[in-house]
Amino acid sequence: MAISVETFFLAPDAQGTLQSQIQEMIAQGILSGRFHRGEKLPSSRKLALHLGVSRITVTLAYTELLANDYLSSRGRSGYFVSDNAPVPPVYDPAPHSEDRVDWTRAITHRFTGGDTPRKPDDWSTYRHPFIYGQVDPTLFDHANWRICAMRALGAKDFAALTSDYYDRDDPLLVEFIARHTLPRRGITARPAEILITMGAQNALWLAAQLLLGPQRRAVVEDPSYYALRDLLGHTRCATLPVRVDADGLPPEQVPPGTDVIFCTPSHQSPTTATMPMARRRALLNRARDLDALIVEDDYEFELSFLGAPYPALKSMDRDGRVIYVGSFSKSLFPGLRLGYLVGSEAFIREARALRASVLRHPPGNMQRTAAYFLSLGHYDTQMRRMAKALHARRRALEQAIGQHGLTIAGRGVYGGSSLWMRAPEGVNTTRLATVLRSRSVLIEPGAPFFAGPDKPQGFYRLGYSSIPEGRIAEGIAGIAQAIPEALS
Amino acid sequence: MAISVETFFLAPDAQGTLQSQIQEMIAQGILSGRFHRGEKLPSSRKLALHLGVSRITVTLAYTELLANDYLSSRGRSGYFVSDNAPVPPVYDPAPHSEDRVDWTRAITHRFTGGDTPRKPDDWSTYRHPFIYGQVDPTLFDHANWRICAMRALGAKDFAALTSDYYDRDDPLLVEFIARHTLPRRGITARPAEILITMGAQNALWLAAQLLLGPQRRAVVEDPSYYALRDLLGHTRCATLPVRVDADGLPPEQVPPGTDVIFCTPSHQSPTTATMPMARRRALLNRARDLDALIVEDDYEFELSFLGAPYPALKSMDRDGRVIYVGSFSKSLFPGLRLGYLVGSEAFIREARALRASVLRHPPGNMQRTAAYFLSLGHYDTQMRRMAKALHARRRALEQAIGQHGLTIAGRGVYGGSSLWMRAPEGVNTTRLATVLRSRSVLIEPGAPFFAGPDKPQGFYRLGYSSIPEGRIAEGIAGIAQAIPEALS
Repeated sequence: MAISVETFFLAPDAQGTLQSQIQEMIAQGILSGRFHRGEKLPSSRKLALHLGVSRITVTLAYTELLANDYLSSRGRSGYFVSDNAPVPPVYDPAPHSEDRVDWTRAITHRFTGGDTPRKPDDWSTYRHPFIYGQVDPTLFDHANWRICAMRALGAKDFAALTSDYYDRDDPLLVEFIARHTLPRRGITARPAEILITMGAQNALWLAAQLLLGPQRRAVVEDPSYYALRDLLGHTRCATLPVRVDADGLPPEQVPPGTDVIFCTPSHQSPTTATMPMARRRALLNRARDLDALIVEDDYEFELSFLGAPYPALKSMDRDGRVIYVGSFSKSLFPGLRLGYLVGSEAFIREARALRASVLRHPPGNMQRTAAYFLSLGHYDTQMRRMAKALHARRRALEQAIGQHGLTIAGRGVYGGSSLWMRAPEGVNTTRLATVLRSRSVLIEPGAPFFAGPDKPQGFYRLGYSSIPEGRIAEGIAGIAQAIPEALS
Repeated sequence: MAISVETFFLAPDAQGTLQSQIQEMIAQGILSGRFHRGEKLPSSRKLALHLGVSRITVTLAYTELLANDYLSSRGRSGYFVSDNAPVPPVYDPAPHSEDRVDWTRAITHRFTGGDTPRKPDDWSTYRHPFIYGQVDPTLFDHANWRICAMRALGAKDFAALTSDYYDRDDPLLVEFIARHTLPRRGITARPAEILITMGAQNALWLAAQLLLGPQRRAVVEDPSYYALRDLLGHTRCATLPVRVDADGLPPEQVPPGTDVIFCTPSHQSPTTATMPMARRRALLNRARDLDALIVEDDYEFELSFLGAPYPALKSMDRDGRVIYVGSFSKSLFPGLRLGYLVGSEAFIREARALRASVLRHPPGNMQRTAAYFLSLGHYDTQMRRMAKALHARRRALEQAIGQHGLTIAGRGVYGGSSLWMRAPEGVNTTRLATVLRSRSVLIEPGAPFFAGPDKPQGFYRLGYSSIPEGRIAEGIAGIAQAIPEALS
């Protein structure tokens, strides 16, 4: 690639002759790693014109750099960064200027330091990745996704989708969700009650920003999705963890004064408990009594291979009290970043305005691609394929767990993609995970899901959406073998 | 499209016989517009299985609906929504449940009601759209964008890009920005100093959230981009508008106690003033004296068809005091929603954590597509083509303005895509815009750009990025003709 003439500037307050300044600029570009070996420099004529200096000045600078082996010349084709040019340091070069800002003072709100643990970036290179929330590329209908993307990038759609939508969404996607996706959860909603979000994370964030603040109280399940606690914390509300049982969140434990209840009735995250219908009704009644709102994160309802899922809590809501969060990230691929919020029009209107201020709208052609993939039936086909594969993996997993005498603490009633496990007394699963990682087995320790300082150390989660069926038994054997080593 | 069996639920507390409940569900689906004419219903066997009722119950319900002309039967191929089925109301059906939530109380922060005016959604159907910030599809290299998108959707990239990147960005895009884009603005930055954002809007929002709050003071240019004032307002900081002059923001007017200065030195938005080098140095000195930070929105620097742009303010920053905002939305297409923040590592680290909490990351394959489009040189070619077209339009515009005696109040020194205009004494440009709109001419009244209650009414903006060269003269003639009608 040629080095653009526009990357050269003469600093008005620079020291030295023009020629030495030019030499320095180029040497600096090479040493800092900006200019790579073999890259072509602008012609002396062009650079001279751009900098407003005489051509001979540039030529002299180039000649000097040639002599120093920074540049090489290939006859008439010009000057190039030499193959013998000094190599830039392997590590990041030192910052070009001193940082004189007191960032501790300058930054009013800190967002680093949350509870959220990270999966290893190279998780897919592990032999037994029992991790959660990542896709198995072999289950994704990549070919049809690509065809849909092509269609969404076609001339006809492109004009519509590339303009700034301001605060609107792709009407095709919204209509599909209203007519086909939500009815499967028993939910009726008009387009004005639906907002497309950048994944479920963004939907939960928007809801938290709108409904919470320093004077408000939010109930979260304990254990729960850790990133949820982080984002609630940013609103400075009081977060009240309520311990879940085998049926999920116990309504009677929701304390008076609660403003918003965050819950996952389909599959409690991470214990996978499914809330029975009677408790759903009780939870709605409790919310009505407290005049509280409910944010229902209905993730993974599509992966119901063991039986039909219960209708969503939102479908039983007669007051407009439930805000529903759906996502395509888990069922398609997490990098897609498409989810949605369903709620009363007054709420969605504010969420739309907040979203517009934060990011305007999720990219139009991603929305359109998803709309095609859904409406052409590829999504349903893929869900069936995924459900079948996950069902087989679940069987293999439960069988291996039985053989090795491991203990399941929670399993989804109608499917899902993970099991919640309890290790034997005295085992620290964070240590267990470290031991297993060195043996190419990835599990998720349970502690980070729990609120407060005294986190139970004996749980772990086994995701089976990313591990091939054939490797499950071996992986479980590895866990069983490592457990005695992780006794505290 | 077939109606999925999963959209049917029997409400546990429903009245009436099972058969009548089934009939009602289907009739309701048709009347509410969820089921469309010609759509196929599930087979009676399937639906009976799904609902756990006897098949004869479903068959009786179907037969009844057939008699009522809701359904039609096509022999062996099953039941369909009849072509004579009642038509759903044209307007939104009434909400299915009463809203019993007091949203005024429930919502802690309101985001609607901002200053931001809306362009008409159908702006592209106007004959003379002198509007700003939208793309001209004829200038966009759609074919190569599509090829790059295909490549980014290829099997090799897909696996990498579809996983959840957590808080990271596409390393290819970040590297290109570091090595090729920023050097053109005189800026050296390491990858850890760069964050990809959902357009410039998102970059400005992130900076405001991190640096402002109730105890802080932000300076904004007056007039300025209205959405900026809205998003600053949401942080509850004190926003201090400083009137710009022909050289942009006057540094000596930045009051003591200022924490952050938001500015647009390349092309002041909306007056298009370019800040001279001496004033840039003065502004940096002022910021240093006040220990203030500067957020530099460097939009449209690529559209410099009249001369080389000055290096960015950030390039002169030796303290880490300037936070730089760049965007590909204006130069590629606004629906892309890709921009970037450049700043000290301590700042970018917090911005990355906040972005992760709000939305995780901009979609990986959008980032990769842009990286290909940039690194294959298509972007530069397109910028040259755009600059050429805009240059021709600018000439036509200035010529027509001269002929009709209109007054230019501000024009970019090295290019851009709009002119800032002053109407004759006594003309209200909001009224002018209304008059012109009825004649298929779109202009932007200047008042919404100004802060405070006494907004000057005599300015307007003429964007020329969306209007073909051949229609400019006619459009300007229309404006000249309408001006006398808009005298107050």
